[in-house]
Amino acid sequence: MRSILGGLMHTVLSSRSAFAKNSILEEERVVEALKKKGRRVIELNRGDPPAYFATPKYIIDAYVKALKEGRTGYSRAEGVFELVDAILKRYARLYGVKAQEHDVIVTAGISEGLHFINASLINEGDRAIIFSPYYNQYMSQLRMDGGEPIVERYDESNAWNIDTEGVRRSLSKLKAQKKLHKVKYMLITNPNNPTGTVLKRSVLEEIAGIANDHEVLLISDEIYDEITYNGASFTTMSRVAKGMPHVILNGASKDYDATGFRIGYALVPEHDRVSTQLKEKLADMARVRLSVNTPAQYAVAEAMNNVKEHDRALKRMVESIERSVNYATKRINENPYLSAVRPNGAFYILPRVDFKALRLKDDREFVDKLLKSTGVQLTRGSGFGAPSHIRIVSLPPKRILGYAMDKIDYFCRSNARK
Amino acid sequence: MRSILGGLMHTVLSSRSAFAKNSILEEERVVEALKKKGRRVIELNRGDPPAYFATPKYIIDAYVKALKEGRTGYSRAEGVFELVDAILKRYARLYGVKAQEHDVIVTAGISEGLHFINASLINEGDRAIIFSPYYNQYMSQLRMDGGEPIVERYDESNAWNIDTEGVRRSLSKLKAQKKLHKVKYMLITNPNNPTGTVLKRSVLEEIAGIANDHEVLLISDEIYDEITYNGASFTTMSRVAKGMPHVILNGASKDYDATGFRIGYALVPEHDRVSTQLKEKLADMARVRLSVNTPAQYAVAEAMNNVKEHDRALKRMVESIERSVNYATKRINENPYLSAVRPNGAFYILPRVDFKALRLKDDREFVDKLLKSTGVQLTRGSGFGAPSHIRIVSLPPKRILGYAMDKIDYFCRSNARK
Repeated sequence: MRSILGGLMHTVLSSRSAFAKNSILEEERVVEALKKKGRRVIELNRGDPPAYFATPKYIIDAYVKALKEGRTGYSRAEGVFELVDAILKRYARLYGVKAQEHDVIVTAGISEGLHFINASLINEGDRAIIFSPYYNQYMSQLRMDGGEPIVERYDESNAWNIDTEGVRRSLSKLKAQKKLHKVKYMLITNPNNPTGTVLKRSVLEEIAGIANDHEVLLISDEIYDEITYNGASFTTMSRVAKGMPHVILNGASKDYDATGFRIGYALVPEHDRVSTQLKEKLADMARVRLSVNTPAQYAVAEAMNNVKEHDRALKRMVESIERSVNYATKRINENPYLSAVRPNGAFYILPRVDFKALRLKDDREFVDKLLKSTGVQLTRGSGFGAPSHIRIVSLPPKRILGYAMDKIDYFCRSNARK
Repeated sequence: MRSILGGLMHTVLSSRSAFAKNSILEEERVVEALKKKGRRVIELNRGDPPAYFATPKYIIDAYVKALKEGRTGYSRAEGVFELVDAILKRYARLYGVKAQEHDVIVTAGISEGLHFINASLINEGDRAIIFSPYYNQYMSQLRMDGGEPIVERYDESNAWNIDTEGVRRSLSKLKAQKKLHKVKYMLITNPNNPTGTVLKRSVLEEIAGIANDHEVLLISDEIYDEITYNGASFTTMSRVAKGMPHVILNGASKDYDATGFRIGYALVPEHDRVSTQLKEKLADMARVRLSVNTPAQYAVAEAMNNVKEHDRALKRMVESIERSVNYATKRINENPYLSAVRPNGAFYILPRVDFKALRLKDDREFVDKLLKSTGVQLTRGSGFGAPSHIRIVSLPPKRILGYAMDKIDYFCRSNARK
């Protein structure tokens, strides 16, 4: 009907949209092409438990029941009461944390919760403290929402524990510059992705103390809270930050082995002015998008309430993860070009790569060439703020991980400087 | 452990978060309280087909099958290929629109798609053309993402068709002011929410011509495309805007009677520079949040591919909606304080209220008092940019709608000026 435009000359992408990148999935089109050619790809890039552990039958049964009962319309925007109550019971049971119905906002994964938090708090140019290596989405989301990061660090030489003195120094400096009011939150990840570290209670207490001293909202992403091993003991920030405004992010993806359900939540258990304003605003945001998947919410309510079945499935999964992580860490540390701190939570390993000894420019080239030459897909560390590293998802059983480690060893040897 | 802060004095909500409001759900806490007291509430506020039409069994069966086959991990970020292919087939079959795999981005409802589009295109202060009465979320989302609306109008005196001359005038003025580059898109809704109008092909052609002349990206929200009646005939904007950059928003919520699945999509079928950049950016955004609900995607793929079952279920639903809408419109027009254009698509009616004849200040007071005194929940028109109106969801059968209309009649009479 009309002439074909070459493109609207004045329609361009927004500047912040440049931050919409996920290094974990940046090779997906390559992988799709490889698979179409019949190539086998071992995807050690995405932390997806259901790829190796079938989501427990009791959860599937509850999901099916919800569907057959016709739970297919919009739900309460902040989450069905059955799920909200299950979350409250879980926190009371596991951690002695007491909260109320309106303290919980169910979201489509933590991704959505974090977007709601950024949109609620961040004005253009506001700051947030994140720790490097960080889960890459924190950075993308913060910047897409107009914020600027203050990057503090987890210290590799101290088993990836938080460099608390560094944070204190930065905040004192900002205070002296009268810029503290720009700092909207401090976000930690415990257990950590990508390092696999479970933070000690004493470190959490220091962090809470620093947040308290500088009046910064604390956010703790605890999506791996039940996936700890090698003797580690997890403490929720909610215990340590009692009496201070804080947000706990969690969900069904990892502990309940149900990533594809997309059920996360934000728990804002305090009732001070900041907590109250924030949780009301998160509920407003939830109402704008109406609902998350309804039947999945009932499935997760059952997943949380059926403690016996959950504990059984979790134990089996965590024991397997412990074996896989320890085996892969051993193999990594036997490789002369790699070295890794042994994780004690989650299921990621972040080896340091000795690029000086390899004919490879950087982590991006490492990951790209490894994928194309061996079919093993990892994630470059630079996406997590750790350019000297690569991330390996250690969910598969020893047999598959062993095959992948053989390929990585061979790849490193083939690319070694003589 | 530490003293309880009254609140972090310097943590405050972002200014844009003030736009995070959904008038459709603003009375939810009141409704929850009424229900807890055992009061019956007739919820004519939310357009939720599954509340009155059970999601068809063949869709539920496909959902259950996906769950039992273990489709519970993350999916491809832009949507599983099975669903993408089903969407492409649907558009080819229903509308003769040809598109390719990478032209489709599956999202958590249209809500998420629209957020992705705003985040991709809108810099602080950019503009977008929306038409009033608008679906309220368009405004919330645009403003939360830093954009400013140019509000054009659907003309009530012309059966809520678009006032195309108005749009042309506005755009010409912006062109003269050299501000056209700020206008990132023009968004129409067809069939319309909240007016129920199906736009005529000639109007669509005019709109496409105006967009073409001024090089503005066209977006058409067509979530109700198969819900038309009273002899109306729907045309997708994709036919009319062939050769021009445009985005079609759609999903499973309404046609497939599955709001609670949260499966929407953006279709960007052209391959000009703008379309290509936009669809790549939407895919980037999808990767940042990893995945939408996986088993629901397989269910919707089956919903779209099983044309025979779908057509049967759709016919039954649309016939019932036609009866309900026509009955409610008749009752509205018999009420001396209300008057409505008869819809021919979707399932909303937007009656004008004669506030001069009522002892009620405005639409907000109308809706609030009606809810509290009768248990009938409507939505105020001002949330849609139509403060002289109220919105009624006409999904329930005649029996329930009749009861609600009786209550509304009684309420109007009781509040009439003498």
